[in-house]
Amino acid sequence: MITLSPAVRFTDASIDMAHGAGGTASRRLVEGLIVPLLGTREPLGDAACFPIESGELAITTDSFVVRPLRFPGGSIGELAVNGTVNDLAVSGATPLALVVSFIVEAGTATAVLEEEVRAMADAARRARVPVVGGDTKVVEHGKADGLYVTTTGIGRVDSRSRLGTAGVRPGDRIILSGHIGDHGITVLLARGDIDLQASLQSDTRSVYPFCAALMDAAAPGVRWMRDPTRGGLATTLNELARDCGMGMVLAEDSVPVRDEVRGACELLGLDPLHIANEGQLVAVVAPEAADAALAALHGVEGGEAAAMIGEVRAAPARTVLLTASYGGTRVVDMLVGDPLPRIC
Amino acid sequence: MITLSPAVRFTDASIDMAHGAGGTASRRLVEGLIVPLLGTREPLGDAACFPIESGELAITTDSFVVRPLRFPGGSIGELAVNGTVNDLAVSGATPLALVVSFIVEAGTATAVLEEEVRAMADAARRARVPVVGGDTKVVEHGKADGLYVTTTGIGRVDSRSRLGTAGVRPGDRIILSGHIGDHGITVLLARGDIDLQASLQSDTRSVYPFCAALMDAAAPGVRWMRDPTRGGLATTLNELARDCGMGMVLAEDSVPVRDEVRGACELLGLDPLHIANEGQLVAVVAPEAADAALAALHGVEGGEAAAMIGEVRAAPARTVLLTASYGGTRVVDMLVGDPLPRIC
Repeated sequence: MITLSPAVRFTDASIDMAHGAGGTASRRLVEGLIVPLLGTREPLGDAACFPIESGELAITTDSFVVRPLRFPGGSIGELAVNGTVNDLAVSGATPLALVVSFIVEAGTATAVLEEEVRAMADAARRARVPVVGGDTKVVEHGKADGLYVTTTGIGRVDSRSRLGTAGVRPGDRIILSGHIGDHGITVLLARGDIDLQASLQSDTRSVYPFCAALMDAAAPGVRWMRDPTRGGLATTLNELARDCGMGMVLAEDSVPVRDEVRGACELLGLDPLHIANEGQLVAVVAPEAADAALAALHGVEGGEAAAMIGEVRAAPARTVLLTASYGGTRVVDMLVGDPLPRIC
Repeated sequence: MITLSPAVRFTDASIDMAHGAGGTASRRLVEGLIVPLLGTREPLGDAACFPIESGELAITTDSFVVRPLRFPGGSIGELAVNGTVNDLAVSGATPLALVVSFIVEAGTATAVLEEEVRAMADAARRARVPVVGGDTKVVEHGKADGLYVTTTGIGRVDSRSRLGTAGVRPGDRIILSGHIGDHGITVLLARGDIDLQASLQSDTRSVYPFCAALMDAAAPGVRWMRDPTRGGLATTLNELARDCGMGMVLAEDSVPVRDEVRGACELLGLDPLHIANEGQLVAVVAPEAADAALAALHGVEGGEAAAMIGEVRAAPARTVLLTASYGGTRVVDMLVGDPLPRIC
């Protein structure tokens, strides 16, 4: 399944402690596998240096501990690049560079690590952002779960819109880029703990194209953007409601949820609004810019199901309300506890 | 032992899976413990944004998996800040900002995490660099070793010297900031696997003051700097020799090694040159700048034992030689294997 690229010269069958010790074995792993695949220039603990113009810089870091490492539609490596690119994108920033740090469990097959480094390289290429540096540590067998990946990204902030909760006003529209819950339910099913079959795929992808299209179409009217990952759309909108002191009123019928996700949630007693996404964007947009914003999302690959799902109200303050299809209204809380551990 | 700062409002006795799920428990942990201690502005997955002037930017990332978490003279949190600050400093950069990501094992006492967050805050304050953002993930009990920390730093590159192996010339002097091996042997003894007593402390600290003093005293004559961590001084100098194609000739008598480190190494069959350091600087300096550089290091706290330990020669190419006190000369190799796993 894996075709060795000519540049890969690392032939050890699995990773052991010496590959994290900083000596010759570390150098063989980094120079023989990681650098050729990622195209990193400065791999061995030095800092990577590059010129930068003055402006506003964005920086974000995330660790990824998803279990299993691979699942339909994605893997930890792809997630690690997309998640960090997305944190920059929703901050209104264009990604400039990534650095990555691996914590590998001794005994992990080299093929597993190689697949993830390749997945990172592919995702970075698609997002058009270079991986400029990194680090690799190895811990004893049993002291990690195959592989943990930490990715940090820096980006240049787009000066066209002042994003943040301070600009959110009553009457603003809430726009969502597509179906929710695909990632969380896909990973849950991939673990095989639950006897459910569904042809579902993770939505992991860069949301930068969504953000860029939104800014191009509606820049001064774009108030706030976020990718609703851990805790789902409900948690993200509750944080927004709390931070801006207003209410978010959603129409249940307008929130795109696939039948497979709805079915799995009903069986498991979960709310799709609490399920993690990895390639969705939720944005608050001024009412006069909302139609243009929605049309822009519809024109981006993967944004065909984008929808206007609700609006901002002055009251009830700090609350998310859902108007159900049968007419009733209920309060949507933040996620409490952890029904789906380690989905990213 | 730990005095709760008034700002800390997180009272759960230990960390569980829900604290990594992104919902209310995550928010309580981040806003109640991590943000108050670190003073971070944008903690919850957003990117942190700040203005930057044009110039050359340096970025570096490292994961820390040291075992045990605390040892004489330091701890994982302090190491995670100092290690990243040091990678920037030896690249000739002034640290501007750090971001940090925690992977916590479920069941870890909150007091343990709090101590490390405090240690990071203290180290960052001493290094005068703000922690601007972060992430927290939790994995099941048994799936990590208490706590892993990944720290990423960005810095502004000092334009006074073009550091790199390309500038190294035969006749250049090799300068070391102080005693080698303290960190690695301290961590080894702290594990209690070996029945040895020694009043040794880790040398973990920011080497930025060393680097700044060196640049101030000898800027255009400073060719190359590095902190010899994993793999020790031998590995760092072998990498330099390989990268610049020259030979490094060291005088054994001039390399500062404490009696405790020498004794432990003799008992264990290790070479002090292979033992990790966390607060030492090794630099290559033009011959005419060497005296000023050494005097500058002597004037910095912790640099009292700085020494001129050798020089660069055209031959033997790509080799590190040590002239022993009894007169013989031996080749010093890179570290092979991993005699001291997980020392950072």
